[in-house]
Amino acid sequence: MPSQPFNNMNNDTICALATASGGALGIIRISGSQTFEILSRIFSKDLTIAKPNTIHYGHIYDRSCDAVSQHQSPIIPIDEALVSVFHSPHSYTGEDSAEISCHGSSYILNKVLELLVSNGCRMANPGEYTQRAFLNGKLDLSQAEAVADLIAASNEATHRLAMNQMRGQFSRELKRLRDQLLDMTALLELEIDFSEEDVEFADRQQLLQLAQTINHAITKLVNSFRTGNAIKNGVPVAIIGKTNVGKSTLLNRLLHDDRAIVSDIHGTTRDTIEDTINIGGITFRFIDTAGIRQTQDAVEQIGIQRTYAAIDKAQIVLWLIDAIPTDAEITNITTRTQGKTLIIVHNKIDKENSTPHPAVQHTRSPFANLHFGDTHYQSIKISAKLGTNIEQLEQLLVQATNLTPIEDTDIIVSNQRHVTALRQALEAITQVEHQIIQGISSDIITLDLHACIDSLSEIVGDISSDDTLQTIFSRFCVGK
Amino acid sequence: MPSQPFNNMNNDTICALATASGGALGIIRISGSQTFEILSRIFSKDLTIAKPNTIHYGHIYDRSCDAVSQHQSPIIPIDEALVSVFHSPHSYTGEDSAEISCHGSSYILNKVLELLVSNGCRMANPGEYTQRAFLNGKLDLSQAEAVADLIAASNEATHRLAMNQMRGQFSRELKRLRDQLLDMTALLELEIDFSEEDVEFADRQQLLQLAQTINHAITKLVNSFRTGNAIKNGVPVAIIGKTNVGKSTLLNRLLHDDRAIVSDIHGTTRDTIEDTINIGGITFRFIDTAGIRQTQDAVEQIGIQRTYAAIDKAQIVLWLIDAIPTDAEITNITTRTQGKTLIIVHNKIDKENSTPHPAVQHTRSPFANLHFGDTHYQSIKISAKLGTNIEQLEQLLVQATNLTPIEDTDIIVSNQRHVTALRQALEAITQVEHQIIQGISSDIITLDLHACIDSLSEIVGDISSDDTLQTIFSRFCVGK
Repeated sequence: MPSQPFNNMNNDTICALATASGGALGIIRISGSQTFEILSRIFSKDLTIAKPNTIHYGHIYDRSCDAVSQHQSPIIPIDEALVSVFHSPHSYTGEDSAEISCHGSSYILNKVLELLVSNGCRMANPGEYTQRAFLNGKLDLSQAEAVADLIAASNEATHRLAMNQMRGQFSRELKRLRDQLLDMTALLELEIDFSEEDVEFADRQQLLQLAQTINHAITKLVNSFRTGNAIKNGVPVAIIGKTNVGKSTLLNRLLHDDRAIVSDIHGTTRDTIEDTINIGGITFRFIDTAGIRQTQDAVEQIGIQRTYAAIDKAQIVLWLIDAIPTDAEITNITTRTQGKTLIIVHNKIDKENSTPHPAVQHTRSPFANLHFGDTHYQSIKISAKLGTNIEQLEQLLVQATNLTPIEDTDIIVSNQRHVTALRQALEAITQVEHQIIQGISSDIITLDLHACIDSLSEIVGDISSDDTLQTIFSRFCVGK
Repeated sequence: MPSQPFNNMNNDTICALATASGGALGIIRISGSQTFEILSRIFSKDLTIAKPNTIHYGHIYDRSCDAVSQHQSPIIPIDEALVSVFHSPHSYTGEDSAEISCHGSSYILNKVLELLVSNGCRMANPGEYTQRAFLNGKLDLSQAEAVADLIAASNEATHRLAMNQMRGQFSRELKRLRDQLLDMTALLELEIDFSEEDVEFADRQQLLQLAQTINHAITKLVNSFRTGNAIKNGVPVAIIGKTNVGKSTLLNRLLHDDRAIVSDIHGTTRDTIEDTINIGGITFRFIDTAGIRQTQDAVEQIGIQRTYAAIDKAQIVLWLIDAIPTDAEITNITTRTQGKTLIIVHNKIDKENSTPHPAVQHTRSPFANLHFGDTHYQSIKISAKLGTNIEQLEQLLVQATNLTPIEDTDIIVSNQRHVTALRQALEAITQVEHQIIQGISSDIITLDLHACIDSLSEIVGDISSDDTLQTIFSRFCVGK
């Protein structure tokens, strides 16, 4: 349970459409203490006496005076419906709740929602169901956030990430760390109580070891964010190079391999996808360089600006060349790509077999050592047109991400809010270590220990401001 | 039950996504004798022992060898899910069936469907659930067709039409008529058995009266199609006229009154709507005359061809003028609009107050008597720009449809297949009347009586070819 109550909440009964409209069926969720009273006013059966976890067939009617006077008896039902009944606390929100399954016509779904509202429900805010589940202690904040990630998951890796987090793997690790920190704090606070007597209950050497272990665990979590972020958002890659060097051909070559297979099942709509490919389980997201591709008729300066913008967003830059770049170009690109992985891709080798390029060694290996001045760059010779050495280029891309393979048991942090809190916790525990080494008094150390505990508590929502909660849940879709 | 079994059916267990993907929740339906065996292979609970109409919380797992070897224990579940259990015959299809409610991610939904298929389900064809419901006698064919209409219903009128049909109002009327026809047939067939003795069991005068009553009832149903079709598909209206006469302004004026209010509820996506307005409960569908609107720079001949195309599709034609048309134009338009309702709309009256148009009488009434040669046309003076007399134009539109107001108890036929069968039935019963009057022998009369009964039986699906069923159900969405 959260230690600070979330004041914006009230105990009214909420309703929302939980499915996208346009299918054969649509589901409307209702949650709150008045669920069954309100439902019984519009349903053909009395649901206040229905047993939990049962399904009831009946009709939904508008029994308001207006409707009755407009349509003389018999009233035409809004729909036939199945209503599922859940009793507090054994429901998603922890409250009394119900789900109406009716025909997926948007007219019907809107009409039923209007009826629920006119009979006492309030339209739910985005994420309000999960928010209530959180406030009722059904899941912690990091698990609640995982619900949104799970719904958004579009491939096995993001699904696994979200599912592990929702099932509490991350929460359990945080609880373990907080328990250790609380133990340390308790020992040190005991010393403070007895400070007049100048005793040390806690062995400083053992304390230091514990702090180091905790530091190590938090560091591991922080470091996992690089992988988590790559899984969740993909690794951004920019393909740059002069007009006509073959950027579009290369992109199409990389994309058309159809590695990102989405099951083609009737009736499911594919989400709009960016230019992404999945190689070895890693999603590479190609930065839209449409602008760059279209600079043929534009002022050269604009082309360069767009190239810079693409580089800025990228983690990996593929520099496509078909001739030796000028010194100015080399300086430009290498300066711009500092801190990023630059791969120089020598295209159109199909055209140059007879006239070897001086900067590229035509050995059997597709990989060439490319030197500009003193610096050595990764490079590869390809033919985007013929598809030569594309697989090797893909291997280079995977290597360039520098991501370690993930085990099922690994905890991967993929949420910006979480990693920010973890970094704060890491700073605090590092401080604690220094203070123990320097023999600082226990009252100072406990301050930093508490800071560390608080940072970890923020992640699971034990300490969260209303603003934080509002921000988190407003990102959810309505009906969840 | 259909008298001809539908051969394409088999008894396998089917599954399909019943909701649109992209919401918080997604529902997958399963139906068939193996439902619970298959489900229990992928669900954390044994559902073969679950009570009917109950809901079960659990996890969905991929327990196949591949999945287990890839992910060492513990296996990560595909999702948390609620499974609703329905037992034959008390389910939508009449078979054992279940609904899995899981998170609305398309990754999860596809994965669960794949799992169901790999464990023995078959992906359902469009409408296959309703088809099974029909074949198991849960609803007749006209009710089944109403299910598709109900899902597609986008306003109160279409909803009421579909709901009444689904609830069997039309089917009951057809049954009543068939019972009367069967009684007549039975009497006449008795005569045939005793034909040697030349007796008449059935009073010819009473028979004729009964045939006339049935004829009257079927005629009423056939005539209701005009209204039913207008409700379901809208009344097609074309606005024609020269460039710059104000067609777009008038259309916008008619559309922007926002009569076609779609409830703006968060999370529901509006369907793409045509240019339609609802006046007095009648939907007017404006034929896309975008082509006509863009003829400013085009050859005049093309503009005329497009106008003709719009007129051909229309039931009502609004001819917008701002000056007296030439004789050639009048001949053209009046010839082209024969059999349709032509309303001549004199626009831009705001500009002409000082110079009265000779062909239009500027009285206080907005309605003017417009004569071209010997013919009199409905006409109205408006200012599309200022909105003058737009309400009166709308009244003219409603009158022009010549539709009678609908009572809740009225049976409205809105399906092309139904009206075709009803027209055949009408032809047969009219033939019966003639034969009775002419004193034709009973064996000939019974042939036409049977033809009449067969036509009515086709509507509810007692006599339907496999092809008819295929055509009907293939128009459904998957999952219904």
